[in-house]
Amino acid sequence: MVSPLDSTPAADGFRMPAEWEPHSGCWMAWPERPDNWRLGAEPAQDAYAAVATAIAASEPVTMAVSDGQYERARAALPESVRLIELSTDDAWLRDTGPTFVVDGKGSRRGVDWRFNAWGGLEGGLYFPWDRDERVASKVLEVEGDERYAAPLVLEGGSIHVDGEGTVLTTEQCLLNPNRNPELDRAAIEAALHDHLGTEKVVWLGDGVFNDETDGHIDNLACFARPGVVLLTWVDDPGDPQHAISRDALERLEAATDACGRSFEVIKLPAPGPLTTTDEEASSVEVVEGTRPRRGGHRMAGSYVNFYLASSRVVYPLLDPSHDKEAGAIIASAFPDREAVGVPAREILLGGGNIHCITQQVPAVG
Amino acid sequence: MVSPLDSTPAADGFRMPAEWEPHSGCWMAWPERPDNWRLGAEPAQDAYAAVATAIAASEPVTMAVSDGQYERARAALPESVRLIELSTDDAWLRDTGPTFVVDGKGSRRGVDWRFNAWGGLEGGLYFPWDRDERVASKVLEVEGDERYAAPLVLEGGSIHVDGEGTVLTTEQCLLNPNRNPELDRAAIEAALHDHLGTEKVVWLGDGVFNDETDGHIDNLACFARPGVVLLTWVDDPGDPQHAISRDALERLEAATDACGRSFEVIKLPAPGPLTTTDEEASSVEVVEGTRPRRGGHRMAGSYVNFYLASSRVVYPLLDPSHDKEAGAIIASAFPDREAVGVPAREILLGGGNIHCITQQVPAVG
Repeated sequence: MVSPLDSTPAADGFRMPAEWEPHSGCWMAWPERPDNWRLGAEPAQDAYAAVATAIAASEPVTMAVSDGQYERARAALPESVRLIELSTDDAWLRDTGPTFVVDGKGSRRGVDWRFNAWGGLEGGLYFPWDRDERVASKVLEVEGDERYAAPLVLEGGSIHVDGEGTVLTTEQCLLNPNRNPELDRAAIEAALHDHLGTEKVVWLGDGVFNDETDGHIDNLACFARPGVVLLTWVDDPGDPQHAISRDALERLEAATDACGRSFEVIKLPAPGPLTTTDEEASSVEVVEGTRPRRGGHRMAGSYVNFYLASSRVVYPLLDPSHDKEAGAIIASAFPDREAVGVPAREILLGGGNIHCITQQVPAVG
Repeated sequence: MVSPLDSTPAADGFRMPAEWEPHSGCWMAWPERPDNWRLGAEPAQDAYAAVATAIAASEPVTMAVSDGQYERARAALPESVRLIELSTDDAWLRDTGPTFVVDGKGSRRGVDWRFNAWGGLEGGLYFPWDRDERVASKVLEVEGDERYAAPLVLEGGSIHVDGEGTVLTTEQCLLNPNRNPELDRAAIEAALHDHLGTEKVVWLGDGVFNDETDGHIDNLACFARPGVVLLTWVDDPGDPQHAISRDALERLEAATDACGRSFEVIKLPAPGPLTTTDEEASSVEVVEGTRPRRGGHRMAGSYVNFYLASSRVVYPLLDPSHDKEAGAIIASAFPDREAVGVPAREILLGGGNIHCITQQVPAVG
């Protein structure tokens, strides 16, 4: 990889824009590993293609794909999607791709975080992950953007920013000893500010129940705009998600952002509860080194896991009994965007959702 | 691959510019196959890196590389060289990459020829060649240029254009039954004109003696400017190259170009004769399906096989007894360019030279 820059984004006047700020495009990666995606990944590929198609109607999409899947992906995707050969270990560009930062003066660069497959040898999801580790630098070479090598393990899905100085994250993930055991809370806050150009971290506690990422924020809550947070919500006090969401709500109600604003919280009802069927679990190949799938497993479904394209919000359809209400809430939270639902159970079966599989490239300027 | 355009470059007002016209950059591909490159391709990689470095001082260079070689190539290349993961069967971008065409109005497109590894199952150099067959479309996706799918087998090294309507090529290659047996000379001329935007083909006979490409023009002769041709030359009547070069000279002296000009021919002395040593041949792995290397084999060395970068002509150093004279002739043929010699025996051992391993991307406009 090209030698990283010697400094940090903050020191150079760069910051991570909020997802609603202008994009030049979006990166995704094509799913294929049969030990994570059932039936040789074909149903997941259809779902990814539908997501790419929905986003491509709003902004340019680049899909990373292995050489072996190149022609299949080309046939499955609209011609407007740019296909780039780029090997990965799995298909989560949010977590393996660079976090882009801009300086407001026409320059864009990328932050290449360390990656350990969501926990390394202590709870990570697969081994090895060397191809994933190379993804961010390869994306930056294609984009022609310079690279910062951040000295901490972090996935893009574990942070959200409001573009005005605030980072939203979870203790469960960022303080997990399987990521950066040598760094305490203060050191992690400092590293976030150095690399995101932020000033304040708002800490929530746990992520969504049973989230195998160790509680990524992007499945639990996100900013709708500065001062406004969408939070996945379950009313039933007997559901383990209830206490998690209530704790997050209380923390948000007690917090202020980098600009001193209190938060308005919009509750977004969770789908389900959703569980993996035996048929779904048994059609995933079992491979040594990869966490197996089991039938009856409660999945970490959440409507918060959407993507803000330039003129659209692309959100997951997960449960006919909640999709409509969730879609209406999302649409009203983003009145300037067209809300587009895409069937996403096959993505959820692999461990994440639409936000997890996308990475925006902010416009320069 | 994205569906090709329905028409042809000529019908759409596009033409292939001459190599001396402005470039936006240059593509190459990283060598690695140990059944073509000795000692696990390491000496060839050093030579390719030196060529890339020499060109990168003049125009942007993009190097295609497999995932497995990505970090090694990154370490070996200057940071200014853009590295893109792109799987190939071997490392001859001239022959596997697209031929770019421009319309003079701000658009550039690419011609994706059919490829059969220099002769397919009748004399081709290796099997399979499916990754090479995908190279041109992948390059065009990275560049964001639309694609014409030409209906004939052709390698970029088998044609030269003067940018003013003339194509220079050899009968040995383009009329070889192992390329397009169903097309006669007239049909091939028509296909060239359709895809290069040209009007006249100047046919030479054979290519350089023992050239395993079946006589690519880019190892025998090239335009220095419209109406002026550099021709590899051997004075010794006992050398098999003498009769080949003499025949080419006679054909050029009898021909006129698309604008009606007679040709001025500049003789460029050939190196050597150069032969593969036993040590060189024995350090190439023997693999079923790949043409083996043998010690004592006369190689098709030629100084004509150079690359015209934006402000440089990068030519091969092959033989201390001829390098200086050849370099002086090349320098005087391109008075506006800096002539830079790069040691290239390791490239020649693999079957070609600097022009064979490069592909210019013309500037749009």
